[in-house]
Amino acid sequence: MNVTLHGKTRHYRTVAFDTAKNAVLLIEQRLLPHEFKIVATRDYRETARAITDMVVRGAGAIGATAAYGLAQGTRAFRGSDLEKFFRHVEAVYQTLAAARPTAVDPVNAMNDVRRHMASGETVAEQQALALAAAEDFANEDVRHCEEIGRHGAKLIRNGMRVLTHCNAGWLAFVDIGSATAPLYAAQTQGKKFHVFCDETRPRSQGATLTAWELAQQKVSHQIIADNAAGHLMQRGEIDLVIVGSDRVLGRTGEVANKIGTYTKAVLAARHEIPFYVAIPLSTIDWNLKRGFDIPIEDRHESEVLGAWGVTKSGKREYVRVANPSSHHHARRHLPSGRTLAATART
Amino acid sequence: MNVTLHGKTRHYRTVAFDTAKNAVLLIEQRLLPHEFKIVATRDYRETARAITDMVVRGAGAIGATAAYGLAQGTRAFRGSDLEKFFRHVEAVYQTLAAARPTAVDPVNAMNDVRRHMASGETVAEQQALALAAAEDFANEDVRHCEEIGRHGAKLIRNGMRVLTHCNAGWLAFVDIGSATAPLYAAQTQGKKFHVFCDETRPRSQGATLTAWELAQQKVSHQIIADNAAGHLMQRGEIDLVIVGSDRVLGRTGEVANKIGTYTKAVLAARHEIPFYVAIPLSTIDWNLKRGFDIPIEDRHESEVLGAWGVTKSGKREYVRVANPSSHHHARRHLPSGRTLAATART
Repeated sequence: MNVTLHGKTRHYRTVAFDTAKNAVLLIEQRLLPHEFKIVATRDYRETARAITDMVVRGAGAIGATAAYGLAQGTRAFRGSDLEKFFRHVEAVYQTLAAARPTAVDPVNAMNDVRRHMASGETVAEQQALALAAAEDFANEDVRHCEEIGRHGAKLIRNGMRVLTHCNAGWLAFVDIGSATAPLYAAQTQGKKFHVFCDETRPRSQGATLTAWELAQQKVSHQIIADNAAGHLMQRGEIDLVIVGSDRVLGRTGEVANKIGTYTKAVLAARHEIPFYVAIPLSTIDWNLKRGFDIPIEDRHESEVLGAWGVTKSGKREYVRVANPSSHHHARRHLPSGRTLAATART
Repeated sequence: MNVTLHGKTRHYRTVAFDTAKNAVLLIEQRLLPHEFKIVATRDYRETARAITDMVVRGAGAIGATAAYGLAQGTRAFRGSDLEKFFRHVEAVYQTLAAARPTAVDPVNAMNDVRRHMASGETVAEQQALALAAAEDFANEDVRHCEEIGRHGAKLIRNGMRVLTHCNAGWLAFVDIGSATAPLYAAQTQGKKFHVFCDETRPRSQGATLTAWELAQQKVSHQIIADNAAGHLMQRGEIDLVIVGSDRVLGRTGEVANKIGTYTKAVLAARHEIPFYVAIPLSTIDWNLKRGFDIPIEDRHESEVLGAWGVTKSGKREYVRVANPSSHHHARRHLPSGRTLAATART
């Protein structure tokens, strides 16, 4: 999407590749909204570290990063010995897979790249195929989000006030985003609407990422504390909710997403406000049978404590925190919970 | 309640009076949980400033602070000219009333003190009556909270997990608190239970004040991001919700409280979890006819932005915030919403 710096507007993808330098280019998301910076990883280990350290986050974005990282590592191999090459590729793969062990997207993306590589007969052919496959993967991610936008824009009517939670925006994908795709498409069509961005404590992705994104695209928006959404719904000031998802169960329709999503779904049901989950097909898990089987990451309490400057120390042993990072909500809790999954099935 | 400093445990009230120094003694709440400090205001202007600057907050606490402040100002008068004295008292009253213009508690408390002063015939008599009335006001506040605790403790059973929002604890009153009163009383009775403190963004009173309070009384507790409550309820990990209130409409039973309370009430209804509002009678407004008539303070956006270090400046004009500070929720949204108001009616 577009970013305006010093008065100049340029298009950026969240994840891209510099073929000449064999570098993965990433928007350094930890600096937003304070600073916009592109980092170029010099080798696949740096790429893996960028995933681990949350320079890049979001399902689509880390999938593409791992795909490019595998191509990057593959292309760094010197020589023509296929056996040595395979061992090298395996090491690259394992390093990138271990970068965020609970995520499935990097592994799926890399498996895709490896499948395409297999048709090459020489090291050089496989290196070229790896890069082409990574590029295809990234372009597919963009195309899926474009489709979500094309279908989802129909939901947005003039004057609507839309709530979103966390960041399922272009920073979470290669471009455009899932929950934001209908917004950006509607904006392009000239529709007027307003977006409320949940702050999304404890990591505040709504306040730091989604609000920044929307500002860059000049979409009318406001940040609200997570506590304020119920109040706004009670007063009839929210017409539509659109969120993304970490995982949707294909068998049951259950949705897992950032902590707080379930709360917004219950509130939307109470107030009969349509609630949409916008995802590409790759988010659907066809194996799991029950939402309660989705693993929930218990993250560090410093994420909660950080906002008010308390650190856990001997002096403050009374500070105790529970910090589940995401949760699932059963389909029965979704009021108008038709997902936009089908929009990516083109 | 008790505070342990350097291994020594001592009892403190949130608001107290030093007769010899004619000073109001306040726990400096803005420093919590980092530092425990008692400030002594030297004159009524300093007392008014302490209310304005949020050194002290909470309905009962600022009521008592204003009552003591009026006595403090009254006692500072030198001379016996009744007419000059009345003008002086009026100036003190107006200064304290203007300290937090939207709050009704300081005005109610000071009217109470003035009523008692009226039976004095000399300046000296009225000065003595003012102090006695302020002390009575503070002691009454404590007694009401004790009664809430006595009745409310029956709600707490062994093994229960209780959610509370914001701070309706002893720091919001002279002592004991309203929402916390049942917890402290149950603790004294030897019951075992666990408390989840909502962080309560944007000002985070749950994380900074309630958690600190509970730690001082050695009540088992954890801080959670406001987003986590629905997740815990969905998993059956919350058995009871107790909150305080800024204002309850006597005519309709509607409750106004810190932003986010309504959300928790809707979630509790969804999961059939009992939801109690613990208040002294002074919180009941017998005049207003509709909850939607309760004025909602739109507070400064810096409260929302502060947590992630963004300030509004020329460079960051894209940062927009909506920050309503409290809201009302209609009685029909309260599931088992019997209030504990009656417990203070003794």
